[in-house]
Amino acid sequence: MSTRAPDTVDGMVPTDDARATRSPPPRVVVEDVRPQVDGGRFAAKAIARDPLDVEATVFADGHDELRARVRYRRAGETRWREVEMDSLGNDRWHARVTLPEVGRYELTVTGWVDAARTWRRDLEKRFDAGQDVANDLATAAQLAEDTARRCRGADGDTLRGWAKQLRDRTTLDDVSELDELVALLDRHPDRMQATEPDHVLPLVADRERAACSAWYELFPRSASPDPDRAGTLADVTARLDYVAELGFDVLYLPPIHPIGETNRKGRNNVEVGEPDDVGSPWAIGSAAGGHTAIDPQLGTFDDFDRLVARAEDLGIEVALDLAFQCSPDHPWVRTHPQWFRHRPDGSIAYAENPPKRYQDIYPIDFENEDWPALWQALRDVVTFWIDRGVRVFRVDNPHTKPFAFWQWLITTVKADHPDVLFLSEAFTRPAVMHHLAKLGFSQSYTYFTWRNARWEIEEYFTELTTPPGNEYFRPNVWPNTPDILHEYLQHGGRAAFTARLLLAACLSANYGIYGPAFELMEHVAREPGSEEYLHSEKYEVRHWDLDRPDSLRWLIARVNAVRRAHPSLRRDRNLRFHPTDNDTFVCWSKRTDGAVPGAWGAGDDVVLGIVSVDPHNRQSGWVHLDMPALGLDWEDSFEVHDLLTDAHYHWNGPHNFVALDPGSVPAHVFEIRRTTPREPGAR
Amino acid sequence: MSTRAPDTVDGMVPTDDARATRSPPPRVVVEDVRPQVDGGRFAAKAIARDPLDVEATVFADGHDELRARVRYRRAGETRWREVEMDSLGNDRWHARVTLPEVGRYELTVTGWVDAARTWRRDLEKRFDAGQDVANDLATAAQLAEDTARRCRGADGDTLRGWAKQLRDRTTLDDVSELDELVALLDRHPDRMQATEPDHVLPLVADRERAACSAWYELFPRSASPDPDRAGTLADVTARLDYVAELGFDVLYLPPIHPIGETNRKGRNNVEVGEPDDVGSPWAIGSAAGGHTAIDPQLGTFDDFDRLVARAEDLGIEVALDLAFQCSPDHPWVRTHPQWFRHRPDGSIAYAENPPKRYQDIYPIDFENEDWPALWQALRDVVTFWIDRGVRVFRVDNPHTKPFAFWQWLITTVKADHPDVLFLSEAFTRPAVMHHLAKLGFSQSYTYFTWRNARWEIEEYFTELTTPPGNEYFRPNVWPNTPDILHEYLQHGGRAAFTARLLLAACLSANYGIYGPAFELMEHVAREPGSEEYLHSEKYEVRHWDLDRPDSLRWLIARVNAVRRAHPSLRRDRNLRFHPTDNDTFVCWSKRTDGAVPGAWGAGDDVVLGIVSVDPHNRQSGWVHLDMPALGLDWEDSFEVHDLLTDAHYHWNGPHNFVALDPGSVPAHVFEIRRTTPREPGAR
Repeated sequence: MSTRAPDTVDGMVPTDDARATRSPPPRVVVEDVRPQVDGGRFAAKAIARDPLDVEATVFADGHDELRARVRYRRAGETRWREVEMDSLGNDRWHARVTLPEVGRYELTVTGWVDAARTWRRDLEKRFDAGQDVANDLATAAQLAEDTARRCRGADGDTLRGWAKQLRDRTTLDDVSELDELVALLDRHPDRMQATEPDHVLPLVADRERAACSAWYELFPRSASPDPDRAGTLADVTARLDYVAELGFDVLYLPPIHPIGETNRKGRNNVEVGEPDDVGSPWAIGSAAGGHTAIDPQLGTFDDFDRLVARAEDLGIEVALDLAFQCSPDHPWVRTHPQWFRHRPDGSIAYAENPPKRYQDIYPIDFENEDWPALWQALRDVVTFWIDRGVRVFRVDNPHTKPFAFWQWLITTVKADHPDVLFLSEAFTRPAVMHHLAKLGFSQSYTYFTWRNARWEIEEYFTELTTPPGNEYFRPNVWPNTPDILHEYLQHGGRAAFTARLLLAACLSANYGIYGPAFELMEHVAREPGSEEYLHSEKYEVRHWDLDRPDSLRWLIARVNAVRRAHPSLRRDRNLRFHPTDNDTFVCWSKRTDGAVPGAWGAGDDVVLGIVSVDPHNRQSGWVHLDMPALGLDWEDSFEVHDLLTDAHYHWNGPHNFVALDPGSVPAHVFEIRRTTPREPGAR
Repeated sequence: MSTRAPDTVDGMVPTDDARATRSPPPRVVVEDVRPQVDGGRFAAKAIARDPLDVEATVFADGHDELRARVRYRRAGETRWREVEMDSLGNDRWHARVTLPEVGRYELTVTGWVDAARTWRRDLEKRFDAGQDVANDLATAAQLAEDTARRCRGADGDTLRGWAKQLRDRTTLDDVSELDELVALLDRHPDRMQATEPDHVLPLVADRERAACSAWYELFPRSASPDPDRAGTLADVTARLDYVAELGFDVLYLPPIHPIGETNRKGRNNVEVGEPDDVGSPWAIGSAAGGHTAIDPQLGTFDDFDRLVARAEDLGIEVALDLAFQCSPDHPWVRTHPQWFRHRPDGSIAYAENPPKRYQDIYPIDFENEDWPALWQALRDVVTFWIDRGVRVFRVDNPHTKPFAFWQWLITTVKADHPDVLFLSEAFTRPAVMHHLAKLGFSQSYTYFTWRNARWEIEEYFTELTTPPGNEYFRPNVWPNTPDILHEYLQHGGRAAFTARLLLAACLSANYGIYGPAFELMEHVAREPGSEEYLHSEKYEVRHWDLDRPDSLRWLIARVNAVRRAHPSLRRDRNLRFHPTDNDTFVCWSKRTDGAVPGAWGAGDDVVLGIVSVDPHNRQSGWVHLDMPALGLDWEDSFEVHDLLTDAHYHWNGPHNFVALDPGSVPAHVFEIRRTTPREPGAR
């Protein structure tokens, strides 16, 4: 901890020494630069080649004209790239920059009092008022001369010519006579007294899939087409066509490592299992190996390589689970017993949440005295799988391991492999979930599963998609997981599954489902009040009939196709909710930015969604559209094209009647096309 | 500008060197400590001896028990004082501290994983579940031994006794057997791995008058009781009894220095005045002297000393105006011409806002090459008046002088004179006004004068009294100033003056009026659409009949007496608005904290105000009180005592009918007394 008081004024006090100083401190203040996370302590997140809006508050005392520029560079570069900022009014400035490739960047904003622009403004006012401008022209001569001293080549010569010419002049016929000079002064500003914030702001530019991804989770051992045997990695490879047909681009596999036998849990998580129980994939490690081994029952490394290669052909990435814990049979328990906590009686401590005991799991002790070797070994696990072609990791319960470990792991792994993505599976308190995102997790699980009422959904997604959270926390929303079968799905039937799918896929650019349980609407809980599945795949092999006629696979395929076709659905910051007079309706839109902000550009894409969250009753009511948020004027007519059913409707103005029936699809996902003719040049 | 990226993980990477390191990085995160300004770049403001609420977000990975403490000390002290924090839930922690005296402080929060409390929690859960606690007792022995090593004297001996005793035990009859041990472990926590934020947060503790003051502004030259001559400082001294009777505790005088003659402005600000015009007091400096001289027409230094002394007797402080600009006749123009900006033709630049010209004023050039001497000379002006007993300064247009100057001036002056207060007279954009407050101004003028509708008042005062602004920006609100006669006062008559007085004095702990123009309801503008007074005292001598029967002096005296009698009106953070169904009613309350938060304590003081902002029509309607904000239950009966009229009413529950008539006093200021009997021990 440093004890410096950052607002001491050392260095500003005009002591005798300071009389030798040429200039007083700079006059411009640059503050509240966005994006930033905790004053630059952590990196904000961006996407390579996406437009990135940078804003800052820039001001000075008095009434002089200011200029400001965004400066950014890749970490390690010495030269800054610069983009001039525009004033948004009220001292806020904006520029749009593009980070050219994946990697770490540094960002800052510089602002300065611009003597040339101040001169130009005052000259024009005096000239327009018919006042004497002789002093202004003499000032111009001085500005031209000073500026010439700062620049080489032709511009310097031209400026010297202007200085010479202006020294003899006391009047002006028209201010436009000075246009060339004004342009030259603008091109070579005096930035000796420019201000920047105390420190640069770090940024991480990730690849597209960090911003937009559709995840499908399945248990390999349940992927067998043959009910008489368990599934293998080869079966998963065969199932890739199905996953691709559904439109997913990340296939996430729970741990594929050998499973411990000691204290193995039985079906439905009973404490003492039967001899033929298969155990939980999260009880990692047996005589067959640990975190860098493949469960022999699932197959071989060759099988794994074929899976990754075939997935790649289909545009799918294979995501593995990083669950840093061990079964009592994990090789590390024997080779590195010091990596586990020992109790006073000498035994290794199993996982506990007193009085509950999880005797099939040994947590790793991240604070043991040999921690540097342990941390290195865990990183070696990650790089082992990276070397086998894995670029996406879902991290199990990161909130039960030290923050410093994750910051170190992610930062050092991404230094060598900037395209690697980490999804944080922390379902815990907001401060902890946000901190993990700040430390570097590319995406984060959310509370979505528990947000089912309209007001909850609007409030939560507004929080997720607005600053400061959205500058570092990328939500990945799941209607179900192997750990969470919400009562809404238990009791809501097909309409509930449909609503949750559409909300997840269309509100959030990153989403996932745990299948085939989802598309087959698996909905029976282990016991009343539980969110655990009965016959959970976590503890037993399941066989799924993918061809069941009631499967949601066709709807899922359609929704994912809509996501691919509509760029507005591929980002989160553009989400807007619209009022409705029926509290069961969630109504929202997403719209790509046209070339001109606020204008209906050529490439503009606008999607409007309306979902009823009542899975039991037909609901109807009025939606009241925020027309400008759709790129429309308040009186516009427009066509809405339902992307789920292909129906077309003609709507006029903001108020429109909607009826949704849980018996069919209780939702609309509309593409909007404006039909009111617009005056040329008008918005 | 530093180029460090603050989230690098240097020092965390487990290199071979690091294997020698004893411990991994600390696990606790401490963030968002309040109060803080811009991450500690500027000092937050507090009041000496006031309770100061400190909050922080403190959390770690996993499920261990944490503890946290606020640490604070006077700047320059080496030893920290500490106060244990309590959890508010959701990782937020709170403690209340008291800064014992005026001056600068440093604040931080420390948090740590508490092994002893974690042990105690788990032991109790296992014991309650009937599980074996032998390992827990062995752990306790180890904790006792480790803790004994950290503490001297009797506690160490007792702990060693516990360690010895526990080593032989494997069972427990009751957890309470360990109470003494638990208390000892709590008293001597292991803080080796405690976390604090990167840097300490600075605080300034000011004296009471910074938080609560009532200002009265008058022009000394208009203070003569004799219409045939101008007023003097001696006349001001004679008028102090009147000011005291009105209940003000700061008397602010516009500049009292010699007034320039060159280009002196005439009455009503005409460009060329008459020979007998007295000029603007803000055109400072003549042959008679500059910023450290007194206008000979006002009197002598002896007169000034007598004024200050008599004011002090009456509990009034004299505030002077720091207007750092010069008339062309100021001695500095001759002795230090380099402190002014010269135009190319050699003339000194007068003030301009092109095409407008202010030829009676030379702005000071804070960036001239001799700036260190200039800044020192300006500080010498301040210390000159401090040496004559002045402790409060109103600073004229600080936003047209460099920020760095003010930061240096205020910080260095307060280093020697921590009781000195500066009021910022900046009516400009929000970012600039807030920045000046961050730099150290004790109080700030506001937009109050232009906030006259109910929604404007509620929105603005909510902003002013809530974080982050209220941690550094102390509003001082004025219904009028010599520069601002709002149209609401021009056309609203007595009811408008009354409403604005009550809003200013009861919404804000710091307020002021420009008199006698205010109490005599001066309301004629120089021309339609102008906010300037006709016959403004800025340019001419006025004579006021203080005894006019329609004067508001009795109301003002009453309001200031109410402020003195009611501690709830002497702070700002306790302001709460209440809904009403009549949009012309502003309804608010202020309540002191009882000893127990949320309880109706012995010293609890609750004031409820209702003002109609319609100065023309009788208005009536229902107010809907937020009863808990008043310290009441929803069904309570209570007595309201109107402190303006002495009327008493009996009210029941939250909904009450009010009628306000501009013909009398269009407001209530109620003291509230609960009359429902309360169960002993209940809230």
